[in-house]
Amino acid sequence: MAKQQAEAGANYIDINVATGHGDKEPSDMEWAVKLIEQVTDIPLAIDSSSQEAMEVGLKTCSKQTPLLNSVSAEPGRLKPFLDLAEKYQTPAVALPIKDSGIPPSAEERLDVCKLITEEAAKRNIAPERLYFDPLVLPLGVDSANPSVTIDTIRKVKEQITGAKTLIGLSNVSYGLPNRKLLNQIFMALCIQAGLDAALLNPTDRSTMGVLKATEALIGTDQMCINYLKAYRQGLLKD
Amino acid sequence: MAKQQAEAGANYIDINVATGHGDKEPSDMEWAVKLIEQVTDIPLAIDSSSQEAMEVGLKTCSKQTPLLNSVSAEPGRLKPFLDLAEKYQTPAVALPIKDSGIPPSAEERLDVCKLITEEAAKRNIAPERLYFDPLVLPLGVDSANPSVTIDTIRKVKEQITGAKTLIGLSNVSYGLPNRKLLNQIFMALCIQAGLDAALLNPTDRSTMGVLKATEALIGTDQMCINYLKAYRQGLLKD
Repeated sequence: MAKQQAEAGANYIDINVATGHGDKEPSDMEWAVKLIEQVTDIPLAIDSSSQEAMEVGLKTCSKQTPLLNSVSAEPGRLKPFLDLAEKYQTPAVALPIKDSGIPPSAEERLDVCKLITEEAAKRNIAPERLYFDPLVLPLGVDSANPSVTIDTIRKVKEQITGAKTLIGLSNVSYGLPNRKLLNQIFMALCIQAGLDAALLNPTDRSTMGVLKATEALIGTDQMCINYLKAYRQGLLKD
Repeated sequence: MAKQQAEAGANYIDINVATGHGDKEPSDMEWAVKLIEQVTDIPLAIDSSSQEAMEVGLKTCSKQTPLLNSVSAEPGRLKPFLDLAEKYQTPAVALPIKDSGIPPSAEERLDVCKLITEEAAKRNIAPERLYFDPLVLPLGVDSANPSVTIDTIRKVKEQITGAKTLIGLSNVSYGLPNRKLLNQIFMALCIQAGLDAALLNPTDRSTMGVLKATEALIGTDQMCINYLKAYRQGLLKD
């Protein structure tokens, strides 16, 4: 899978080995990082909520600087994980989650992003190294959920200079039919709002086609060079 | 075609009989309006740049108030076509085209839209009756073209209270491969920017699927009722 994703154009490969057996997670992470580094040179995203597994993962990476996924504003996760990002000089995904949970409004999520930015600055971690995940709650639960995510992206890009944004695509469509259609259109709308990165499957051709079409349409793919390249590679489908 | 489009959910059926034989256009328009009114009760959009054909079309409509498509800021088209919209009490599509052509920037297009709004107000035509077409030039000609259209939509919605917006979908992809993909994603991005209406083929299931997905994602389809209905009708595809 790692080889296929790297060949399909992934910029990072996300590694998550959480299985519910917490005591095995650090050793599983070490095993996974070593194994995946044998087949690809692209950087890895170490995806864990365990401080120990995170440090093992970051430490084990020997080829490229990994991405720490993720820090949040929860007390057990804010300072310890930012300390790791400082120690291993990594960029970090940052979630606007507080001890009380996920703030319902875009304004409150932005406030939490600002708090994380301030705490990161104390460790000389610039906003450019932070990938804020605005958090995606399912459309099927509340029609306003996707708009809150999109507004949060817009506010982070406007108000935290240099900060990046990232989403996990699939949660938006949870519980609804034709999930891929919703995920793809949601990605396009988020990109228009300023999205920089997404957790997605790069071997999924139609998702990559929507990505290329969106980048062409918002003007970041000058002369449609990547769009036309994707066409010649047979990546695009109507 | 008219029956199929009405059954597929069209709100208006656009009638354009321009064939290059200008002298036949008024009588062709009369023929088309009468014929189409025999098979459907939904309103018609009379689509012509000929003042005579326009008036014949508007006058011939006997079932519903038609849509005048279109007025522009060109001297021969501004006052005469607004006079027709006043006389027949119709809504009107309005193009920000001046005698000197299509303004390159969103700011200039907005200025022309404001000029048309003022001229319409003199005839008691409120902004609510105007559908501004921000104009879509091909992406393949200049990577900035779609962004100019999207910015114009946003500015019109922000600065001309009550005004509607409308686009023709297909021009954006002219000369590029996988046109339907580009058209559909462009539609989604325009809807996010405030688009109210589009000239499209309602019998095209995948385009209608993208429309329903977008409306669900931006929160205008409360509880995803229309999205789920489209799913049950087999309209959605991944």
